[in-house]
Amino acid sequence: MSTQDELASIPGLAYMDGKYLPLAEATIPIADRGFLRSDITYDAIHVWKGRIYRLREHIKRFRASMTGLRMDLALTDDEISEILVDLVRRTGYRDAFIMVMCSRGIQPPGTRDPRLCRNRLYAYVQPFLWIANEEQRRRGLRMVLSKTQRIPSEALDQRIKNFHWLDLTMSLFEAYDRGAEVTILPLADGTVTEGPGFNVFFVKDGVLVTPDRNIFEGITRRSVIEIAGDLQMRCEIRAVHGTELSAADEIFTATTAGGITPVTEFEGRPIGDGKPGPITARIRDEYWRRHDDETLSTAVSYE
Amino acid sequence: MSTQDELASIPGLAYMDGKYLPLAEATIPIADRGFLRSDITYDAIHVWKGRIYRLREHIKRFRASMTGLRMDLALTDDEISEILVDLVRRTGYRDAFIMVMCSRGIQPPGTRDPRLCRNRLYAYVQPFLWIANEEQRRRGLRMVLSKTQRIPSEALDQRIKNFHWLDLTMSLFEAYDRGAEVTILPLADGTVTEGPGFNVFFVKDGVLVTPDRNIFEGITRRSVIEIAGDLQMRCEIRAVHGTELSAADEIFTATTAGGITPVTEFEGRPIGDGKPGPITARIRDEYWRRHDDETLSTAVSYE
Repeated sequence: MSTQDELASIPGLAYMDGKYLPLAEATIPIADRGFLRSDITYDAIHVWKGRIYRLREHIKRFRASMTGLRMDLALTDDEISEILVDLVRRTGYRDAFIMVMCSRGIQPPGTRDPRLCRNRLYAYVQPFLWIANEEQRRRGLRMVLSKTQRIPSEALDQRIKNFHWLDLTMSLFEAYDRGAEVTILPLADGTVTEGPGFNVFFVKDGVLVTPDRNIFEGITRRSVIEIAGDLQMRCEIRAVHGTELSAADEIFTATTAGGITPVTEFEGRPIGDGKPGPITARIRDEYWRRHDDETLSTAVSYE
Repeated sequence: MSTQDELASIPGLAYMDGKYLPLAEATIPIADRGFLRSDITYDAIHVWKGRIYRLREHIKRFRASMTGLRMDLALTDDEISEILVDLVRRTGYRDAFIMVMCSRGIQPPGTRDPRLCRNRLYAYVQPFLWIANEEQRRRGLRMVLSKTQRIPSEALDQRIKNFHWLDLTMSLFEAYDRGAEVTILPLADGTVTEGPGFNVFFVKDGVLVTPDRNIFEGITRRSVIEIAGDLQMRCEIRAVHGTELSAADEIFTATTAGGITPVTEFEGRPIGDGKPGPITARIRDEYWRRHDDETLSTAVSYE
């Protein structure tokens, strides 16, 4: 199968250097530090029924990530938002996944000084992505606690969304080897953090719990915490040990690429009765219901 | 300045998908996990006076990095070597820097499973790169011990050469803020590892010392250790604390992009008398002298 064939199957529209082009044809200069040094940050946003979910908050976080990496674009938050809304509009997609990235840019020859680069905006829109396939969403995911540790925030502040994914990727191979599908990664002290592209929650005796440290503070995670508050459910945001997950009544993942997904097996053993739990279902339903809330989303004018 | 202008100033030749093209025109599909997840490994090799230095060892290490990330190419080590030699030959460069990369490849739509990707080879050749400019090589580099920690091998095995450079890149900003030029990064336990693109050695009372853990085992580092042996100089490969660097008689960096470079200032204070030291000079001279050794290098037939 040729590269052309591989790419041809990828739907979507990209924006770079002020131009729109099919995602399958969108490329990054090899000399871009965003590629050669993964010197790049990004944000992932979703569109549901023609509305962009919590766009303003995503852009605010994207700006914080850029600032954290000492990057800047000659664009205001509103201008970035307009580019993304326009990108979605052009695709016509009602349910979609948006990637917006800021790369350090192209290093001038004869130096390694990242301050000399002009930072670059890249963006693209794809049809909505589910982190789990339909069967997995129905029966729940199989999760393991990986031996690979999460990159600690002392090395790379994990509140800055980044493509340093090899810890996450290699943990997936470990999951596959053990008959599982997803992972949660520990720190050296045995507390757990997050998995490849998602935050994790568990339920024990009616109390919701999610890790507080060395994580990316996801917008879906934020939504879950708000929903718990509105449902008058206690939600603890604190250090979590892997053993607590083994003893949980329910576990679920929270991510932009698919929302809330139940985890029904952990370390080879069923969680609860091995079926998606009632609190997970309630939060998931409430999460999707809130997509109709106009204060939380931005309408796209298609035509 | 447009992207085209920025790229136009970059000399070099690239190889991808079986084709040769100017580095300035070489691009990576945005959908390649090598970009979107930094799911890629590489090796950096240099050419000096028309000979590729320790090519076989570099390719062997590149293969080990691929295996470590569970990647494979439909190419033998000899075939990869032939591509690189041919790439150098086509540029005509006598002193050059070679990058060879293996990316996970393009993710088929509807999945996040890295096992389903076809791994991809990318390579390019540029004129020889010096990690330090001429003035810095003459007077020695100013180094600080960064507050940013190195990504630990428990999260990402640092023997596998990778583009997860944000810890290194952000440490450089810290160096610039403090009037320095390079950094060495610690682990959580206070031992030191390496800097952005180089290994570190120091000399104390005639003994050479270099860190043993959580480092990329560079070919230049290996050359220095061999040279020390041949010069009957004691070389300790062990845990090193930052305080030892402050008390060193000499410090130098070792990297493919420039060989041996003296460090004459550490944490704002002079090392030794603040001038490049005699042992550093002796090892550097011997390092370059060995480039004439035909058993250590591969001649390029430019015709």
